[in-house]
Amino acid sequence: MTDAHTAPASPEPRPAGAVPDDFHVFDTTLRDGAQREGINLTVADKLTLARHLDDYGVGFIEGGWPGANPRDTEFFQRARAEIDFRHAQLVAFGATRKAGVRVEDDPQVAALLESGAPVVTLVAKSHVGHVELALRTTPEENLAMVADTVAYLRDRGRRVFLDCEHFFDGYALDAAYAKQVVRTASEAGADVVVLCDTNGGMLPAQVAAVVRTVLADTGARLGIHAQDDTGCAVANTLAAVDAGATHVQCTANGYGERVGNSNLFPVVAALELKYGRAVLPPGKLAETTRVSHAIAEVVNLTPATHQPYVGVSAFAHKAGLHASAIKVDPDLYQHIDPALVGNTMRMLVSDMAGRASIELKGKELGIDLGGDRELVGRVVARVKERELAGYTYEAADASFELLLRDELARDGERGRAARFFRTESWRAIVEDRPDGSHANEATVKLWAKGERIVATAEGNGPVNALDRALRVGLERIYPQLARIELVDYKVRILEGRQGTGSITRVLISSTDGNGEWATVGVAENVIAASWQALDDAYAYGLLRAGAEPQE
Amino acid sequence: MTDAHTAPASPEPRPAGAVPDDFHVFDTTLRDGAQREGINLTVADKLTLARHLDDYGVGFIEGGWPGANPRDTEFFQRARAEIDFRHAQLVAFGATRKAGVRVEDDPQVAALLESGAPVVTLVAKSHVGHVELALRTTPEENLAMVADTVAYLRDRGRRVFLDCEHFFDGYALDAAYAKQVVRTASEAGADVVVLCDTNGGMLPAQVAAVVRTVLADTGARLGIHAQDDTGCAVANTLAAVDAGATHVQCTANGYGERVGNSNLFPVVAALELKYGRAVLPPGKLAETTRVSHAIAEVVNLTPATHQPYVGVSAFAHKAGLHASAIKVDPDLYQHIDPALVGNTMRMLVSDMAGRASIELKGKELGIDLGGDRELVGRVVARVKERELAGYTYEAADASFELLLRDELARDGERGRAARFFRTESWRAIVEDRPDGSHANEATVKLWAKGERIVATAEGNGPVNALDRALRVGLERIYPQLARIELVDYKVRILEGRQGTGSITRVLISSTDGNGEWATVGVAENVIAASWQALDDAYAYGLLRAGAEPQE
Repeated sequence: MTDAHTAPASPEPRPAGAVPDDFHVFDTTLRDGAQREGINLTVADKLTLARHLDDYGVGFIEGGWPGANPRDTEFFQRARAEIDFRHAQLVAFGATRKAGVRVEDDPQVAALLESGAPVVTLVAKSHVGHVELALRTTPEENLAMVADTVAYLRDRGRRVFLDCEHFFDGYALDAAYAKQVVRTASEAGADVVVLCDTNGGMLPAQVAAVVRTVLADTGARLGIHAQDDTGCAVANTLAAVDAGATHVQCTANGYGERVGNSNLFPVVAALELKYGRAVLPPGKLAETTRVSHAIAEVVNLTPATHQPYVGVSAFAHKAGLHASAIKVDPDLYQHIDPALVGNTMRMLVSDMAGRASIELKGKELGIDLGGDRELVGRVVARVKERELAGYTYEAADASFELLLRDELARDGERGRAARFFRTESWRAIVEDRPDGSHANEATVKLWAKGERIVATAEGNGPVNALDRALRVGLERIYPQLARIELVDYKVRILEGRQGTGSITRVLISSTDGNGEWATVGVAENVIAASWQALDDAYAYGLLRAGAEPQE
Repeated sequence: MTDAHTAPASPEPRPAGAVPDDFHVFDTTLRDGAQREGINLTVADKLTLARHLDDYGVGFIEGGWPGANPRDTEFFQRARAEIDFRHAQLVAFGATRKAGVRVEDDPQVAALLESGAPVVTLVAKSHVGHVELALRTTPEENLAMVADTVAYLRDRGRRVFLDCEHFFDGYALDAAYAKQVVRTASEAGADVVVLCDTNGGMLPAQVAAVVRTVLADTGARLGIHAQDDTGCAVANTLAAVDAGATHVQCTANGYGERVGNSNLFPVVAALELKYGRAVLPPGKLAETTRVSHAIAEVVNLTPATHQPYVGVSAFAHKAGLHASAIKVDPDLYQHIDPALVGNTMRMLVSDMAGRASIELKGKELGIDLGGDRELVGRVVARVKERELAGYTYEAADASFELLLRDELARDGERGRAARFFRTESWRAIVEDRPDGSHANEATVKLWAKGERIVATAEGNGPVNALDRALRVGLERIYPQLARIELVDYKVRILEGRQGTGSITRVLISSTDGNGEWATVGVAENVIAASWQALDDAYAYGLLRAGAEPQE
């Protein structure tokens, strides 16, 4: 580690399109959000998340704790090199210097400078119990640790925010000391002092009262960091804003330790739509639903269906008491227009709604079902039966279009099935050798344009081997395959319906450079399910390439 | 339908163990909660839910809308006959009489009497816009509908609560009329007038202000019904209580239309633990987690892992920073003792976890690491390196314990690795035959107790075939394997966006009838990852069975 204070990495400049500084939307998904049980982020994941959050327009992105673990150190290096931030500033998280150590001798503090982040959030104790039990030092030394570390980083050109851990519990125990920590940080040059409800036990009325008093008694610029243990994190965040806080710390989808953190999306939506305060760049609020779902995909969690504003159910109305009135005037039964946050109203499916959505879907895919009730009915029935078996077409447009074309093909002149080859059989072999290496080999037997094809290939796994064998076998007949590439592969195990064994669903995303499409396969084993999704992926790719359907 | 007002069904008596009447916990899971997308309750489901809610100790259970659909009518008949309520009173939901119809001629009102429910909740309009657009009548007639229906039911021995639909939106539009509806209901004999945020667009400060004013201006007993569209339903409910409401309407797990309703469990927990108000019978709060999960099972939804108070993650700690302090005193990092709501604290092992969480985890697993800093450091390093490679130990306690034992085994006398067999090699073949059938065959070559074993088996998939081959090969040497069963299998593709170089993580849950354990495997292909998880699963199962470790 280089000597940081003789050769500090120069901090990043403020982004051109940076949002105004009078109110901070501070995202800590990459740091505090990553502590959610079940989230395990790679550096690549963190870079992707940072791009989404910067694009959405948050003012600050807390990337992690450089020096604390190799992943976070690497993230800051790569983020500076690879991401051109348009709205957000990158924030490094760390702790005040150790007790009894000179700040310039604390390697953890040096790592904060080396990260090159223009902003640093320091976590500090403001609860005398924690100072004694957790830090094992005196209240006076704790104040010195705060003052020294804030001043040291300020002197080296960093902007400093101070997170007061356990502030509300500490305030209940010893309000004078808690406020002294706020004053000390503020006087040492911290731009914002963040009051953290670390254990998440607070309720909005308590938060508002404390924030109001601390603001009056210290005059410091205050922020709020709420955890959701009482189910009130969003309300606690807004209560702090009502009381004068001008900096809110949140995580995307409320990810975080235990129950989670204050959820960025309902907080931003409330500030923009209920408070009339523009906290995002113009037009970004309408990206909320997309960004929320994209982030869920990156962290590999299913988007929460009932999340406020962005859940697929958030504006779904069940038939009954409301249905008739909704037709009169949707605003009677919605608190906002869903389009404001990029979501849509849904009437939950009756059979009629089912037909309507199939027709709509057909139009979306450029296939006019011409109100053919018999055909549409057949497609509805087929989709219901397939979805009952585990298929999902919401996530697999290409497979749905192929299904639609198959049904159209049934009545002769309405086009023909987009099938370019037929599978006779295939075989995949996975071998774990005594030397620990793996061999993956696949053989496929196909028919295309009346020709029987037998091809074998190896791969880094059985599915990859099948993929290669299929290409080897078909590329002479369909050279268009060369441009098709698989870009994503997802597996979900679905519980068997009636105690039968579980079944496997595979979703594959493919691209030809001009666009991406998704296909689905379902079977009792992962290889067979993957083959179905591969079959659809290539059939749809060849359809896009304008190849002539012929088996 | 019998003539209800000449022969009214006699209402149920008040239950013996009924909770005091000065504060009402009113559950509407069976009525409003059933509106949640994905919930579809049978009469049997409703009866089971009613038993759980009565046992938990809510004061009122709203069972549905008798007469509106046959299912609800049947529910009330059977609930009276089959359930001996110990705490709750059954509530029938319905609407005020139709415009221009005499209340005694309204069959919907008659059905409320016939249900035999001792309490009736009437939904009424308090928003002039809805009166005109949805009811298509005059504000005056709407008031008459309220007065007539309340009085009629009161005269026939029913207790009446009035739900003012869209109260807060209506109040914003025409406060005088909204309050007139409250006065009218109260004067006609409604015991409680419930202010409903039907569209769920309110925030706590607004709710508190309106409730306070309405209470002062009407003197009626007020209740609150909040929807969660802003993510503030629990906070809105508590804000109304702060302002003087003494009746809260909630649903178990917050089930309800769109985003959902105010969640019964965090509301009750806050009232009991934060307000110090006993709203449940003695001892029932500790049943909260069990009841929440049982209800999720009945409605066939997975219990929400991150639900406040009751989620399996609600008291799970991951950050190394916190773990060191938790070791000193758990209360420093928990807002309540989890046992108060029947939940438990859990330590998660992860790349973020420091030494302290490893030691705590060791204790949890009954392994005393005796503060051996060198050993613990080795384990921390091993865990970080493995999690960087894609392993996750949070969800795989058994694999973590095996890792811990391997490390312990390195320094001779500290026990030995829990390894019972060694893999020489294995092979899995998946074949898709011309007739469409699949063949899955696996061969394993193992060493156990100095003996070389070669075994082959078929299965419904390659992993199942490997599992069977492993059992076939080992069951003679380890008969304990017969009692071990795989109960769950999860697959995750990590860094799938790269197209190539993605790795596969497999999590397997196993049981021996006495308990369940989870193991993890990571490899470039799903079969190899599955084999690792299987290997750990059987090693840990044999360890539990007290088998002698020997390869």
